[in-house]
Amino acid sequence: MPVDRTRLVLDTIKRLLRRGATVHLHKIINKTHAADLAVVFRFLTLREQEAVFDLMDNVEHEAMFFSELEEEILVKLIEDMPAEKIAEILEQMPNDDVADLLGKLSDDRAKALLDLMTKEESEEVEGLLRYDEQTAGGIMVPDFIALKEDTTAREAINGLQKEYVDVEMPFYLYVVDDHGRLVGVISLRQLVVVPPETTLKSIMATDAVSVQTNMDQEEVARIVAHYNILAVPVVDENNKLVGIVTVDDVIDIIREEATEDILKMAGAGEDLVESQSVLKSTRIRLPWLLASWIGGVIAFFIIGHFESSLSKFIYLAAFIPVIMGMGGNIGTQSSTIVVRGLATGRLNLKQIREVVLKELTIGFLLGFFYGILLGFVAHAAIPTEQPALLLGLTVGLAVISSMTIAAMVGSLVPMVFARINIDPAVATGPFVTTSIDILSVFFYFQIATVLLRL
Amino acid sequence: MPVDRTRLVLDTIKRLLRRGATVHLHKIINKTHAADLAVVFRFLTLREQEAVFDLMDNVEHEAMFFSELEEEILVKLIEDMPAEKIAEILEQMPNDDVADLLGKLSDDRAKALLDLMTKEESEEVEGLLRYDEQTAGGIMVPDFIALKEDTTAREAINGLQKEYVDVEMPFYLYVVDDHGRLVGVISLRQLVVVPPETTLKSIMATDAVSVQTNMDQEEVARIVAHYNILAVPVVDENNKLVGIVTVDDVIDIIREEATEDILKMAGAGEDLVESQSVLKSTRIRLPWLLASWIGGVIAFFIIGHFESSLSKFIYLAAFIPVIMGMGGNIGTQSSTIVVRGLATGRLNLKQIREVVLKELTIGFLLGFFYGILLGFVAHAAIPTEQPALLLGLTVGLAVISSMTIAAMVGSLVPMVFARINIDPAVATGPFVTTSIDILSVFFYFQIATVLLRL
Repeated sequence: MPVDRTRLVLDTIKRLLRRGATVHLHKIINKTHAADLAVVFRFLTLREQEAVFDLMDNVEHEAMFFSELEEEILVKLIEDMPAEKIAEILEQMPNDDVADLLGKLSDDRAKALLDLMTKEESEEVEGLLRYDEQTAGGIMVPDFIALKEDTTAREAINGLQKEYVDVEMPFYLYVVDDHGRLVGVISLRQLVVVPPETTLKSIMATDAVSVQTNMDQEEVARIVAHYNILAVPVVDENNKLVGIVTVDDVIDIIREEATEDILKMAGAGEDLVESQSVLKSTRIRLPWLLASWIGGVIAFFIIGHFESSLSKFIYLAAFIPVIMGMGGNIGTQSSTIVVRGLATGRLNLKQIREVVLKELTIGFLLGFFYGILLGFVAHAAIPTEQPALLLGLTVGLAVISSMTIAAMVGSLVPMVFARINIDPAVATGPFVTTSIDILSVFFYFQIATVLLRL
Repeated sequence: MPVDRTRLVLDTIKRLLRRGATVHLHKIINKTHAADLAVVFRFLTLREQEAVFDLMDNVEHEAMFFSELEEEILVKLIEDMPAEKIAEILEQMPNDDVADLLGKLSDDRAKALLDLMTKEESEEVEGLLRYDEQTAGGIMVPDFIALKEDTTAREAINGLQKEYVDVEMPFYLYVVDDHGRLVGVISLRQLVVVPPETTLKSIMATDAVSVQTNMDQEEVARIVAHYNILAVPVVDENNKLVGIVTVDDVIDIIREEATEDILKMAGAGEDLVESQSVLKSTRIRLPWLLASWIGGVIAFFIIGHFESSLSKFIYLAAFIPVIMGMGGNIGTQSSTIVVRGLATGRLNLKQIREVVLKELTIGFLLGFFYGILLGFVAHAAIPTEQPALLLGLTVGLAVISSMTIAAMVGSLVPMVFARINIDPAVATGPFVTTSIDILSVFFYFQIATVLLRL
């Protein structure tokens, strides 16, 4: 398991660092996969990181390692590194990663590094820097194989051995016209199984999926996953082929987006904060709690408004937690199902009425079940000097209303937010919970006031 | 965008079905990508599905379509189909998908279908049926290219053109010894760029990552994602190569697991239920709400226990929502960060003390901030005949204690559950929320009783 393996490598490296066993350390570091080293770095101090990095002696290994390292760590690591050394490594990295890194540095620093790189590389990187980081243009690599229709299979394979040795993942060869516009695609696999004189035109698929540079990266990921392809070509507004997005980047996007959605729904920021300091984490999480604080204060005023009912029937207070809890929980169920359904494409904004109606029915049925159950408990548990029957009825009805409303709000809010182009995940968590709390409490006391006055 | 595109195809197909425009329909159906058709099928009735399927006339298209279709829909679709027709399609499907499907059918039906398939195919499928569906063995395909060390590049490429034409995704060629044990790996790309007489032994990588048949599929997905590879070889206990897991299956696993985690944390089951009937959804969600119902009843008895404090200071009731809400929200933050950190491998079970201590500190700091804020509001908002100062102090302290405890419980519970091998996501949602509700209410009234007696 990678986790255990990383732990083992980490412990070994830490021990050798303490002992200053440089020879041994040197051997281990250069044998460890760049992806594993990148994980190890999360648990090292900056000084330890620098010591380890100094022992790496293969620029390709360093480049892979830079690509794998979290940007935050990388930015700190290269802060005091000579620009020549950095530029040498950047030359070996995929250009999309270089662009991402330069985007995080000061303009002066980025410019200085670009100046040190070869003209070809720096032009490619500058080309990428023009695109928004979260779009197809921002995540594509400009390394792809583009050939003309009349190229033969033999010529294409020869090309792989000469011009295109730098292309990272040549599973697909793209066919373009004289203006560089995408007209077809062939897999490397097809290429090696046809007779050498076959032209690309006669074997290429012409209905290849492609995406435009400004498409959101989540959408790109969905397309690659949907069609089970290894790379999708990226074209500009004139259908000119400008890059490809590969499946390994798609995996990272899918994982990140899922994590982001989960954190947003929990009102815990957008990025995993467990590697950050206590104070920084506190600062990130503080604003997300404000909604529920304000909601709580509103609930206070609502209950205060019903003070006279409450003082007559003190046991009403004892049911506040269960009524809020049941509403909150079913609301979370509904909003989660809707947010996730929208994210995976299994729910459609056009189904809004159908979805909300369904959730409302489910909320009512579940509310009915748990409401009756609670009504009986209330009736049985309340001291005899209180109007147990009416209190039981009140509590039962309150659970039904709270759960019905919660299921409706929980499904309606994310769909409405998605329709007006607000990320349903970010808006749903605190907003839905708080609204449901307020509505549950209000209807509970309203029902109580009406019924118990009888 | 796939969603819009699917909608368009769906609308067209429905319209043509209504009109009975078979010729037109036939053309559209056979031109639509199998992955898109599979999505369209979710929104059709069984009768419509059968009509559409009858118009498909290419067995390879049908096979791809079967692979893409949700199992539940597929099982119903083939219920009344002649076994010969099904077997013909199964022959063209990847064997892991066939095994998954047969696992869902009755033993008799599965056996009848296997009998109709060629011996080679049915043996491969039966081999796969031995493995647990959620392991590397259950998700691998037995189609891979295995060659000997002394094979030359030229011979390998010839093999691709003859024996191995059926292999789905031949990006990697595996090198095995005389016993079929994995000794090395070469990419197709390397193969076409070396001189034809080069032996595989001289260019293969010997430190290839591999996984065992019984490894959990989530772990397999993590490895493929971590090392940015397109397929990982699967070996048995003797290191014999038995299959490969490809990146397209890995993407599906990562998406499913993320969805599962999100739903479990919300106490909304394990699978997206939005395509199921109201009654079925209700039944699935019912038990998840029991924890919070029981928690609510316990909270009722706790508050009942403090009845005398409550009847003296009726305003105590009005602060129950904000104290529960703040505790619940920070608890959700903490548990989400921990569950997701564990799932992505960024948190480690060995860090338990460190993580819980950090969350506890954050909980205290946030509690301090919001507690003081609330104390002032309480002090200002409470009518003058009540002991406003003491109530303000009580409420402030209660928020501090509730948030500190919530952050601790929210981070501790998932880590403990993970350590004793209970899925932290499933256990966390309802369990954590309910515990926090109970603890918050108890400490609140305990603090009130002590302070207000003064």
